[in-house]
Amino acid sequence: MPNKRPDNIALRPDRKAVVIIDQTLLPNEQVFLELTNLHDMVEAILLLRVRGAPAIGICAAYCYAVLAGGVQADAYDAFYQTCRENGAFLNAARPTAVNLSWAIHRMDKLIGDNPDLPVTQLKEKLFAEAVAIQDEDVAMCAAIAHHGLTLLQDGDGVLTHCNAGPLATSLYGTALGPMLLAKEQGMDIKVFADETRPLLQGARLTAYELQKAGVDVTLICDNMASIVMQNGWVNACFVGCDRVAANGDAANKIGTSGVAILAKHYGIPFYVLGPTSTIDMACPTGADIEIELRAEDEIRRLWYAKPMAPQDVKCYNPAFDVTDHSLISGIVTQHGVCRPPYKENLAKLFAK
Amino acid sequence: MPNKRPDNIALRPDRKAVVIIDQTLLPNEQVFLELTNLHDMVEAILLLRVRGAPAIGICAAYCYAVLAGGVQADAYDAFYQTCRENGAFLNAARPTAVNLSWAIHRMDKLIGDNPDLPVTQLKEKLFAEAVAIQDEDVAMCAAIAHHGLTLLQDGDGVLTHCNAGPLATSLYGTALGPMLLAKEQGMDIKVFADETRPLLQGARLTAYELQKAGVDVTLICDNMASIVMQNGWVNACFVGCDRVAANGDAANKIGTSGVAILAKHYGIPFYVLGPTSTIDMACPTGADIEIELRAEDEIRRLWYAKPMAPQDVKCYNPAFDVTDHSLISGIVTQHGVCRPPYKENLAKLFAK
Repeated sequence: MPNKRPDNIALRPDRKAVVIIDQTLLPNEQVFLELTNLHDMVEAILLLRVRGAPAIGICAAYCYAVLAGGVQADAYDAFYQTCRENGAFLNAARPTAVNLSWAIHRMDKLIGDNPDLPVTQLKEKLFAEAVAIQDEDVAMCAAIAHHGLTLLQDGDGVLTHCNAGPLATSLYGTALGPMLLAKEQGMDIKVFADETRPLLQGARLTAYELQKAGVDVTLICDNMASIVMQNGWVNACFVGCDRVAANGDAANKIGTSGVAILAKHYGIPFYVLGPTSTIDMACPTGADIEIELRAEDEIRRLWYAKPMAPQDVKCYNPAFDVTDHSLISGIVTQHGVCRPPYKENLAKLFAK
Repeated sequence: MPNKRPDNIALRPDRKAVVIIDQTLLPNEQVFLELTNLHDMVEAILLLRVRGAPAIGICAAYCYAVLAGGVQADAYDAFYQTCRENGAFLNAARPTAVNLSWAIHRMDKLIGDNPDLPVTQLKEKLFAEAVAIQDEDVAMCAAIAHHGLTLLQDGDGVLTHCNAGPLATSLYGTALGPMLLAKEQGMDIKVFADETRPLLQGARLTAYELQKAGVDVTLICDNMASIVMQNGWVNACFVGCDRVAANGDAANKIGTSGVAILAKHYGIPFYVLGPTSTIDMACPTGADIEIELRAEDEIRRLWYAKPMAPQDVKCYNPAFDVTDHSLISGIVTQHGVCRPPYKENLAKLFAK
């Protein structure tokens, strides 16, 4: 187990609150929020105060444990039912990232598997499970960073979309892990960060995290990815993922599929990085992944001092898209770089 | 000659000012600016108060005429030199759109071709030339709209990038012309408008112009073009152009090349629309087109109530990119739809 635990998501020492950094206020303000009740927890996930597929899973596990800790029932059945209900509410906050339902399912299962334990012991086990989920993520991110770095050479340019760094996960992050590790090892990697409209996670979070770590980062608008590749500045694309289907189709932040198509056009390898908890073997293809639709005002007016589009113009605002597996050069998990054919090779990861 | 003249760019009746609508304030405010001196004229072009390749050309011609009207010199040589100097300043405001240098060159040439005329008559001729440039643009836009519409069928979905509508040109616009004409003819065309970061011309101007005309328009972020095409909602892409090289490579608003690559991937035809004044036969390929680099703060903080990226993060902010001719299904000018091979077929347009 790692001896360092990240501070983007933490349990308050009295174990009655989950403490998160409010990612919507970065990079202008560093505000930590204490989530003590179901309403605030669901809202934090819904409004992206905590975001990034692995981070959502970790946060939800801590939330589950904190809520369980507050349940008054001493009887197993009543306790289990309340916990499952809380879990269902948390799970409904966002549909696309599999890590959320994966973490909730793991917490539910822990209670379900231990019908003979007293509730006080179950509560302790739930806290320990949430900590384990986070510690495992730290270890997985370190492994992903290590495997991802084998795909880069000193002096390379890397394009990334959205934010799959420490804030979205644990310590190293997934897609940003190889760049952070490269910096530690004295390598010179130039990163191009798509700003990632509408919520600007690339501008606000990726540029912030990489700059803080001293990595050479250049912020671009999403529509500049093509010219940056055309200029010959990009040797590889690294992105995170919210849910990977069994055939390798990968759902990730809206715009990722476009980056993959551009990369293919320009002959640049395109890698998806994430822990195996993001791979959903029960989901056959990308067509089976639900794509979250978000509020139209995120496009029309959010962030702006005044509306920058006609106030009532119709908008389409999907939060994610699916990148076809044929566009993906490799899927990097904590076990290494998985290459096509994905249907066979992803299955092997789970057969281990 | 058309009997209707657009109001986005006009000569003040006393002919001492060019009156433009300030496009940077739309859609929230309709403010008309009176440009009376070289400084304000250059600034209006530089800051995109007037923008759109044909509109810049028309505005520059009016500016040239207004400035010429104010020149005190009676001697031909002194008059010509002052006019050329003013023209050079106007021309330097933005490098990519060929219409700017084309219009300035046309005004310069008019003086150069008439060394025997008195200055008072030259001034009259310059005003008439600016009006002619605008009237010709109105007629060309109507023809482009007509030819472009032949590429659409009732019920089609069209994706467009940036703004090549009436504000950017005259009356119908170029890329938006077919959609506006379709609406007049009772056809149902669904338009997806890329918001077009960083300056949001799609959100602020295209969505505004199409909505005002009653066209079914849906605003999307630039990175959503891929999913919209993947969903099967797009039958054709229509974009404007700032400079087309002799081989068909087309410079247009940053992100256009990305849209073209996506369209090719999804098997969707991609059309570039513009008057022949946008085609630069002296420019062999896209590699010879200068791409304007603009201020980094357009990405980091413009439009926002507060900075939405680390304040000093490095940005790359090209205003345009070049779409390779191999990605273009057709170039629509006032003469019709020009198909590959462009090197031969564009040359034929000018041999007429």
